[in-house]
Amino acid sequence: MKLDAAMAAAIEQSERVKGRTYPNPPVGAVILDRDGEIAGVGATAPPGGPHAEVVALRRAGERAVGGTAVVTLEPCNHFGRTPPCVDALLDAGIAEVAFAVADPDPVAAGGAARLAESGVRVSAGVLAADVTGGPLREWLHKQRTGMPHVTWKFATSVDGRSAAADGSSQWITSEAARADVHRRRATADAIIVGTGTVFVDDPALTARLPDGSLADHQPLRVVVGKREISPDATVLNDDSRTMVIRTHNPHEVIKALADRTDVFVEGGPTLAGAFLRAGVIDRILAYVAPILLGGPITAVDDVGVLSIAQAQRWRFDGMTAVGPDVLLSLTPV
Amino acid sequence: MKLDAAMAAAIEQSERVKGRTYPNPPVGAVILDRDGEIAGVGATAPPGGPHAEVVALRRAGERAVGGTAVVTLEPCNHFGRTPPCVDALLDAGIAEVAFAVADPDPVAAGGAARLAESGVRVSAGVLAADVTGGPLREWLHKQRTGMPHVTWKFATSVDGRSAAADGSSQWITSEAARADVHRRRATADAIIVGTGTVFVDDPALTARLPDGSLADHQPLRVVVGKREISPDATVLNDDSRTMVIRTHNPHEVIKALADRTDVFVEGGPTLAGAFLRAGVIDRILAYVAPILLGGPITAVDDVGVLSIAQAQRWRFDGMTAVGPDVLLSLTPV
Repeated sequence: MKLDAAMAAAIEQSERVKGRTYPNPPVGAVILDRDGEIAGVGATAPPGGPHAEVVALRRAGERAVGGTAVVTLEPCNHFGRTPPCVDALLDAGIAEVAFAVADPDPVAAGGAARLAESGVRVSAGVLAADVTGGPLREWLHKQRTGMPHVTWKFATSVDGRSAAADGSSQWITSEAARADVHRRRATADAIIVGTGTVFVDDPALTARLPDGSLADHQPLRVVVGKREISPDATVLNDDSRTMVIRTHNPHEVIKALADRTDVFVEGGPTLAGAFLRAGVIDRILAYVAPILLGGPITAVDDVGVLSIAQAQRWRFDGMTAVGPDVLLSLTPV
Repeated sequence: MKLDAAMAAAIEQSERVKGRTYPNPPVGAVILDRDGEIAGVGATAPPGGPHAEVVALRRAGERAVGGTAVVTLEPCNHFGRTPPCVDALLDAGIAEVAFAVADPDPVAAGGAARLAESGVRVSAGVLAADVTGGPLREWLHKQRTGMPHVTWKFATSVDGRSAAADGSSQWITSEAARADVHRRRATADAIIVGTGTVFVDDPALTARLPDGSLADHQPLRVVVGKREISPDATVLNDDSRTMVIRTHNPHEVIKALADRTDVFVEGGPTLAGAFLRAGVIDRILAYVAPILLGGPITAVDDVGVLSIAQAQRWRFDGMTAVGPDVLLSLTPV
């Protein structure tokens, strides 16, 4: 098996554990035997459990000897709650290590150098962009900035509306798009809405499976704003935990969530505008439905732009069909 | 060469003459010799000139004997301004004919049957969807409905705005997207705007090449509305012809353009809304820029929808990157 294909399999592994490995990064690993066949796969276990390499090595057993380890992140070189993965790779007799992204953590880094010194062939940067823009995106952002990665997600008609003129909005996007949102919620750490959305839509903000049942992992629900919400609001039910933050300042909200990695903003036009004006959004996910609504209700009102020269400039980094809808992904320029 | 590849080449030929063959359809043809090599290509000449098959046959010369003709439209079987293409194909000794789309015109049709009766192998439907959704889309619409095919084109920020709060809109989309618009204008028959757009933007509505010079073919410029426009308006300059239609009724506008095939609506929110409410739009082209603008100016205001249940439902039939922008294409459900 080629390294790229093995890395794609490692990425797939990592995506299965996204959202459940905090404070560790969601890493995936594949062990190829001497003949290049997959001998074992693994992903980071919940904190305290083994890292991805160790899981994959255990599954590979003796077949790891003389084989290749393909890992989404540079193998760690320090004792945390578990011993260094570099030791495990050397002990298992791995001959070659390929990874996508170097570890930005100065404490854990140095794995590649130690492996090379020990006579292991090391290659870095395999499918790096797929990992930095994919399963490790939020964790790398957190490592770099110390702040959570914030995604603004919204659903819109092709003419930019988030509801019809009478306020009705269920549903703008398709079942497929809504299922995609629930999959993302199930790997997120927190979902932020404003009190306005709680009043108008009374959402549950849970991650649900296609059959309607609750996903294993539920994000923290965060309600932002100074208005009192009803004790009967669905967002306060027992399906997940809920935090109420009495502020309109996005920076304060993000600070209150500083221990999180992957945060979604799903609020209405006012909340979205405040976060966009504050410059704290790291990704936009626009689910665009092939419908026209017209009328006054847009997904965001005021983004602090008066004339075209001041436009907030982003960059498309994804464009995917999701059922009958289109998902556009944007990152800051 | 496989038939699909030859048809792709024929489609490319047809696209070069789109907008210049009225009332004939823009057809492309490829002649393969006995060995399957391209012996000649051709496209419909301006009215009175030869059809695509004849152009391609002339270029192929003797190599057409025993060869295959690959044509986007069923070869015609009637004397119009030129003799039937079926006769030309038989005279040239063509052994096989493959076409994409049957001729819907009862006068010109019957070509496939006559070819088959004459011992020519005939296959229909080769890359049919690429032709019916591509170079022949507007002509087939006209044949079917008797009315021109109407495209609403608009440029928008990802949050659905067609201008910033102060009205400035030059430019929302990239140079690449604007060049794409100009390429489409150069094959269109007419471009409709409202008097409002003439007052606010004073557009030229011409088709220009990337170097700024005028394209060979210019669409008719159509200004719709009851307000008097200034004799100094750029839209009245000598770069193309201009028609002023004093009505707000989209049906009257379309009727006045009934002899055209491919018409674009490029007006502002009011005009676009009127055409969408009237149900006379056959395609939407949305050039979406990766910018946020916010504010009150949207690409369309009122599409006659009050609640989500009444949403105008369309279907995405295209999603393409155009430089840094995304072009979404929609057709009615």
